[in-house]
Amino acid sequence: MRKIGIIGMGHVGATVAYTLFTHGIADELVLIDKDEDKVTAEYNDLHDTLARNNTFVNVRMQDWDALKDADIIVTAFGDIAASVKTGDRFGEVKLNAANAKEVGKKIKDSGFKGIIINISNPCDVVSQILQKTTGFKENRVFGTGTFLDTARMQRIVGEKLNQDPRNVEGFVLGEHGSSQFTAWSTVRVNNKIALQLFSEDEQEKISEQSNKNAFLVAKGKGYTSYAIATCAVRLVEAVFSDARLYCPVSTYNPEFKTYIGYPAIVGRDGVEELIPLKLTEEERNKLATSADKIKENVDKLS
Amino acid sequence: MRKIGIIGMGHVGATVAYTLFTHGIADELVLIDKDEDKVTAEYNDLHDTLARNNTFVNVRMQDWDALKDADIIVTAFGDIAASVKTGDRFGEVKLNAANAKEVGKKIKDSGFKGIIINISNPCDVVSQILQKTTGFKENRVFGTGTFLDTARMQRIVGEKLNQDPRNVEGFVLGEHGSSQFTAWSTVRVNNKIALQLFSEDEQEKISEQSNKNAFLVAKGKGYTSYAIATCAVRLVEAVFSDARLYCPVSTYNPEFKTYIGYPAIVGRDGVEELIPLKLTEEERNKLATSADKIKENVDKLS
Amino acid sequence: MRKIGIIGMGHVGATVAYTLFTHGIADELVLIDKDEDKVTAEYNDLHDTLARNNTFVNVRMQDWDALKDADIIVTAFGDIAASVKTGDRFGEVKLNAANAKEVGKKIKDSGFKGIIINISNPCDVVSQILQKTTGFKENRVFGTGTFLDTARMQRIVGEKLNQDPRNVEGFVLGEHGSSQFTAWSTVRVNNKIALQLFSEDEQEKISEQSNKNAFLVAKGKGYTSYAIATCAVRLVEAVFSDARLYCPVSTYNPEFKTYIGYPAIVGRDGVEELIPLKLTEEERNKLATSADKIKENVDKLS
Amino acid sequence: MRKIGIIGMGHVGATVAYTLFTHGIADELVLIDKDEDKVTAEYNDLHDTLARNNTFVNVRMQDWDALKDADIIVTAFGDIAASVKTGDRFGEVKLNAANAKEVGKKIKDSGFKGIIINISNPCDVVSQILQKTTGFKENRVFGTGTFLDTARMQRIVGEKLNQDPRNVEGFVLGEHGSSQFTAWSTVRVNNKIALQLFSEDEQEKISEQSNKNAFLVAKGKGYTSYAIATCAVRLVEAVFSDARLYCPVSTYNPEFKTYIGYPAIVGRDGVEELIPLKLTEEERNKLATSADKIKENVDKLS
Repeated sequence: MRKIGIIGMGHVGATVAYTLFTHGIADELVLIDKDEDKVTAEYNDLHDTLARNNTFVNVRMQDWDALKDADIIVTAFGDIAASVKTGDRFGEVKLNAANAKEVGKKIKDSGFKGIIINISNPCDVVSQILQKTTGFKENRVFGTGTFLDTARMQRIVGEKLNQDPRNVEGFVLGEHGSSQFTAWSTVRVNNKIALQLFSEDEQEKISEQSNKNAFLVAKGKGYTSYAIATCAVRLVEAVFSDARLYCPVSTYNPEFKTYIGYPAIVGRDGVEELIPLKLTEEERNKLATSADKIKENVDKLS
Repeated sequence: MRKIGIIGMGHVGATVAYTLFTHGIADELVLIDKDEDKVTAEYNDLHDTLARNNTFVNVRMQDWDALKDADIIVTAFGDIAASVKTGDRFGEVKLNAANAKEVGKKIKDSGFKGIIINISNPCDVVSQILQKTTGFKENRVFGTGTFLDTARMQRIVGEKLNQDPRNVEGFVLGEHGSSQFTAWSTVRVNNKIALQLFSEDEQEKISEQSNKNAFLVAKGKGYTSYAIATCAVRLVEAVFSDARLYCPVSTYNPEFKTYIGYPAIVGRDGVEELIPLKLTEEERNKLATSADKIKENVDKLS
Repeated sequence: MRKIGIIGMGHVGATVAYTLFTHGIADELVLIDKDEDKVTAEYNDLHDTLARNNTFVNVRMQDWDALKDADIIVTAFGDIAASVKTGDRFGEVKLNAANAKEVGKKIKDSGFKGIIINISNPCDVVSQILQKTTGFKENRVFGTGTFLDTARMQRIVGEKLNQDPRNVEGFVLGEHGSSQFTAWSTVRVNNKIALQLFSEDEQEKISEQSNKNAFLVAKGKGYTSYAIATCAVRLVEAVFSDARLYCPVSTYNPEFKTYIGYPAIVGRDGVEELIPLKLTEEERNKLATSADKIKENVDKLS
Repeated sequence: MRKIGIIGMGHVGATVAYTLFTHGIADELVLIDKDEDKVTAEYNDLHDTLARNNTFVNVRMQDWDALKDADIIVTAFGDIAASVKTGDRFGEVKLNAANAKEVGKKIKDSGFKGIIINISNPCDVVSQILQKTTGFKENRVFGTGTFLDTARMQRIVGEKLNQDPRNVEGFVLGEHGSSQFTAWSTVRVNNKIALQLFSEDEQEKISEQSNKNAFLVAKGKGYTSYAIATCAVRLVEAVFSDARLYCPVSTYNPEFKTYIGYPAIVGRDGVEELIPLKLTEEERNKLATSADKIKENVDKLS
């Protein structure tokens, strides 16, 4: 039976819960948040949904012990307002480094044996601190990372060419943050090489827009929720079904000695493999720069 | 092809959009809100979801003309903060009476020929003003009304007896607001008559809790969204598939000469039939009182 | 993670597999059949679906040991042709009594610790033989029984009154076979008592049609599959999510000392409770007669 | 509202109906078959599902006039036994050429204005005859073609490399039949070029297996149904939502002057665009040979 813990009942964590709940993906949810009123509200709103939902779901709240036999924990704590205010996900870094240590310790203490999928920002830094604090093997703790930024790039490229975004492949790599970049050498649309479809100037603009779109959304609604929740749910499904799905996530990269967004295979053991890319020199440099930024913060804060 | 307009991109309208979007229910969505930044944010957050969604959805925004050939419009405008502050959905009544007239006129002008499902509060009053302003036949404009309060009652009764809420039948009737009441003569759990399962005191408490739960949720998260959105989506499905589903909605009741929550049959023509209940005298009186409250406000504000 | 074994890859078992597979309900399926070619074909047809399915599913075949940690086993063995030919599900009784003993033993030997949901006919007899052979507690082995016949009754009643079948409550009770009957005292449509909606003659005809519909379907396609598979899948979901859903299934009834179709609560432990009905004397007699028929066959064959 | 006609209630057509029905994709289905008993059986089996289905669906049968305002017609007529017996889909060619002319005429006469998705075999020949007989523009009539064979190739490649088949891109091209071939120059796994992953010998074997798998399935179950139905349903969704999805389907190819499996963009207007591939000379020759075979049969039979 599928049991999932969600730590952090902000807009993102709550939307993950709602999506798992209404799609019949979860059999049991454990919702945890520091704000007792907030988690109680989400708990009640979900329970009020039960009579109109296609499936039943057992929802519990504030019960760390119940994580012991959970299969997956999604971490979505933090204070997005701090990030939105500064225009950078590092606006939350101190708060979330502390959160990650506290949460990581509690997860470890619960006896949890499953996979952690981290959404909290700065995603790469927090994912790594969670891994360090729990002491879990690196494959068992990964972050949504640039899986979302890649979706944004696919969408923008799709719109520019009037195509379903699912027709677009390729990756945004690096930090889920300002040093991320679209690895144009990997992007293809309907099997055509994107480098031949867009001028350098257009590439630059698309890359920038993929990065900034989060803040455009956050400007209007105060946060982002739907795209990130859907990304997290796809990863949850890949772990449950042992899909061995190919997707960019934030995971430990031995070459750069840090967590960073890079294509990997996701299955029941979490990140089961890294898939090396043939990047251009410029892209490798960008990735190294991005890695340095993450590593520096991890070193400082963990 | 299924085309749905959503007017009002607050938490409720946005959650309706997200649910229709991720469940593959809508082929085309038209999102409208007075707050350009907010609707743009939701539009972008949904578009960013496309590369990870199982189906494609066409989303447009701020385009009243696009409602012309929509099948269904869901109205979810308003200012829940005003309601939460006053602890009564009538906190929004003046604002939303004005909104309803403006929105109703624009819907009419768009040439829309489908069904309006109203969520905006006070639900019964707003539903009726929308019907009057559009001039549509009464069956074509109805409100979610006590479909949600009934779900809350089912949930609470289910919890008290450790049962799936879907095992509970019966209705909360009247205003989607403080004068609503559980019609206990209609409530059955696993085919047992609820009147024999709960003392009068317990009945009173459950009825009160069904009513107040919205405000408990709103206290913690500032609004309610998941249960109401799921209720609205079930009604959207019933209209699309011409289900002739039996459920309590806010619809014109010729006996009371007002919109009010009462069991009806929902299909492609909206509310296709009212299903008379054999209520107790006390229940009939409560319903009449609730109707008076709604009617009075409609008369004053429409 | 959700792991389900399906024993018997005829049309019913295969449709159960396909439904679990395409709805993302199963993480792992174990398919077993005596006909190696048939199970291989279904295994391959499902695998060929993977690239177009919304979720991944691990499918294995012919592996009894893999049942050890399955959560649920659905049994759907038998030879429907024998039943169709004789016009009675007892056409398969000898074959399936033998099958049940063999399958029950193998399930027991696998170390399986979950819930068995039996579809094989005659459903009540086979369910009981499976329970006896495995030695599992009675709650852990139950049959789809009259959950399907009840759906047929709801559909026919719904059609007669131009209503969504979900508006119809009440039960077909007894044997999933020729001695079953609609317990009209339990049937309600839109909260109205069905006894007042249909003449005795109409009741008789509906009851008969609910019973015979299976053979009308089988006449045209050689078997029935969609309705029974959907019923089984709803029960699978109720077990996984511990729904405590109220529904008529074939389960051990201490009053009649046999498995027989009767309303129960289905949750993670299988049948968690029987819910007593206030039947008329005539209905009780019919139920007793039906129970005798089942018991007699169980005694003879187990 | 989504209305879909399905012509041909064999295993494939019925599975398409069941899938659209249980996933809430269709609001209205029109089922048509020459065998009155068969279509009546499927009609009844689906109706018996309604009380247990999450959504309502209106199902009608044998009503050609009802196709007038359908959005999509899926054609799935034929006699797979004839194909299985001969080991080639051309076993059905005479029968289905005649069927296509009769069905095409009736579709035209119904006043249908939507999109035809053909499954009947030999798929390319039948698709083209349907287009000619209806006189519809070529974009409005297309076949599932090698969308299925491509899924089989993705699955086999995925299995060989222990990957989710969705990690595999590229195409099987040409006839949905014995002259089809995997265009290895287009195949990539996790962004790696497949030509470098498999020896020529392995490529040959995979290509052969993708082609022959249908007959392995058909050998064991007498037909294939799940993978082909899922492919058809994905195309139905792409048309409804105007997805502009990139996928190989059987469509008119001006270069070869025939219908043939080739990558295209599928949206509300059916096949909206062909996407040219840079094939190797050998691949181009194979495609030309495959085209000749189809063209010859179309010329002979239409």
